Amino acid sequence: MGTLIENLTVQLGTRSYPILIGEGLLGERAMIDRHVRARDVLIVSNTTVAPLYLANLEASLSPRRTIATLLPDGESYKTLDTVARILDVLVANRFGRDCAVLALGGGVVGDMAGFAASIYQRGVTFIQAPTTLLAQVDSAVGGKTGVNHPGGKNLIGAFHQPSAVLSDTTTLATLPPRELRAGLAEVVKYGLIRDADFFAWLEARVDALLAGDTDALAHVIRRSCEIKADVVARDEHEHGERALLNFGHTFGHAVESATGYGRWLHGEAVAAGMAMAARMSCESRLLDAADLQRIMRLIERLGLPTHVDQVQPQTMLEHMRIDKKVLDGRIRLVLLRAIGQAFVTADYDENRLTHTLEAHLR
Amino acid sequence: MGTLIENLTVQLGTRSYPILIGEGLLGERAMIDRHVRARDVLIVSNTTVAPLYLANLEASLSPRRTIATLLPDGESYKTLDTVARILDVLVANRFGRDCAVLALGGGVVGDMAGFAASIYQRGVTFIQAPTTLLAQVDSAVGGKTGVNHPGGKNLIGAFHQPSAVLSDTTTLATLPPRELRAGLAEVVKYGLIRDADFFAWLEARVDALLAGDTDALAHVIRRSCEIKADVVARDEHEHGERALLNFGHTFGHAVESATGYGRWLHGEAVAAGMAMAARMSCESRLLDAADLQRIMRLIERLGLPTHVDQVQPQTMLEHMRIDKKVLDGRIRLVLLRAIGQAFVTADYDENRLTHTLEAHLR
Repeated sequence: MGTLIENLTVQLGTRSYPILIGEGLLGERAMIDRHVRARDVLIVSNTTVAPLYLANLEASLSPRRTIATLLPDGESYKTLDTVARILDVLVANRFGRDCAVLALGGGVVGDMAGFAASIYQRGVTFIQAPTTLLAQVDSAVGGKTGVNHPGGKNLIGAFHQPSAVLSDTTTLATLPPRELRAGLAEVVKYGLIRDADFFAWLEARVDALLAGDTDALAHVIRRSCEIKADVVARDEHEHGERALLNFGHTFGHAVESATGYGRWLHGEAVAAGMAMAARMSCESRLLDAADLQRIMRLIERLGLPTHVDQVQPQTMLEHMRIDKKVLDGRIRLVLLRAIGQAFVTADYDENRLTHTLEAHLR
Repeated sequence: MGTLIENLTVQLGTRSYPILIGEGLLGERAMIDRHVRARDVLIVSNTTVAPLYLANLEASLSPRRTIATLLPDGESYKTLDTVARILDVLVANRFGRDCAVLALGGGVVGDMAGFAASIYQRGVTFIQAPTTLLAQVDSAVGGKTGVNHPGGKNLIGAFHQPSAVLSDTTTLATLPPRELRAGLAEVVKYGLIRDADFFAWLEARVDALLAGDTDALAHVIRRSCEIKADVVARDEHEHGERALLNFGHTFGHAVESATGYGRWLHGEAVAAGMAMAARMSCESRLLDAADLQRIMRLIERLGLPTHVDQVQPQTMLEHMRIDKKVLDGRIRLVLLRAIGQAFVTADYDENRLTHTLEAHLR
């Protein structure tokens, strides 16, 4: 007896892959068999997630040879050194080119496991089993992998698409409320850049979402993945449209690196970053004030930050300049013309940017 | 007044790129301008090559912003740690996505600079300026980048094609004779896998090649690049035919890792590896004994090794098993049906493999 499973496809020609969303997915042996073809599987997880879900997943994967490697939990460990440790485990166990690396965890685990898979033997199969809302709606889809450098977030990495994304929604029941909220920040982003109706739907369902309502979360995951899959299918390597997915992220990454990785959750930094990007859109006379207020209000109601303490505007600007979206030294921003309509620009007033930062830093 | 420059193309659709071969190429400003579009260029070189050619190249690149980073010379430094140092330089100098990384040196420099370019900001432009024969005929073409792991050679890496290969043949004049011979090993490989006429041409030109005859070397580079470009164009990511380029390499890599990187030059290990692969082809009743003798004789006349000291067959087998060409635990070999005709197989007699190793290890 199987559970109801939603099925989307990221369309990338011969590298297309399914996103499966369902309750109890990691215990569905037939499903796992269909999507994990390798006989040797390295499960990369962390010390928080593994005690909850690893045994169940390993049972579903038997009789394959599975080895589990557990990383310390947290963005501060998302480094090239940690990836080197994953590679050491692959080599020590003599995993061949036909092995698979499976990420069981949140965005940090997925980013590092995916990067290790992309550079082990110049690329082996990679499977995502995201266990946080943020990973299920965002980081597990689209093939961006990598690690941080002391000089900036995600500065080292690769594009390496998974062969399947297995999102088991039961894992959200054990997610700390703070992490659930952080995941909702990326969900708000999809509404803002692409879908005003979805944004309005979120405004109407704040209480259900914060309470962890299963149906509401399943809808949120599905709609978020649809939007992301569509954008990625049209611009896999971010030469254009995909940059819209960075809405709030140029500001957010600077918040994370200016405050030291680990103090803010990624989703929290993105929430504050989206508030700044919305304010900048309004200062630039693109977004009207009422929409700015709706955005601020939704972020606040979701228990997410719109402001950042103890960071100077000048420090923010320096961290923004090393961000990957800088082209020829000029910071490019994703701004809004309206809720649901985003665009990329390097054509804006520097004073307005400084003014925006002053309004959100304190 | 320009020098005569040969021009080939590696056909990879929108990622096609030119291979330019000529005397004094690195001093040809117009040529450099045409093929290096970035304004920020990180030149990766080593402490041996840089004193000879860096100033000339930097002059040709001006007024671009160029930063040079010099690696210690040698295969033993081809590690993830060294690549991390290249990344540190890129970050410290705030190089953006639109920068280029240029490798000035041999295969080790090219492999590491290319790998750094492939993972910096998920991939930046990469240009090869190979200064050894081995790099000009082989490693600079085809997009394989990476580093060694204590557990095996080139176990960590990526496919990242250069945007141009600039082979200045004047650099061969300063190449130590041992390195020239090591480069000729890969040249012999092209004859063996694809072109019996080229093999015969090499037999007739041994003395000229060892004397560094410019015309002979230019022909060798051009023909080797033609064969490699053709194979790579048809199978970029080594799902099939490209594996033929590994002729002698499964054995050779095991020699390198069994003896510790650095004692043997890569080309020397490949020479001994080709001798073993040819012997195995003969033991397997594929290649006739006269052809085996021709192959041994050419390798010896080029001053290259056909045998390996102080390594046990069992040790070789263990190192061969971790090689990337192992599929489902079985070592795949590239064998010869005749000079000029290679194929990949996992269907061979294990006893013959052991016997082959015994004949070449002492």
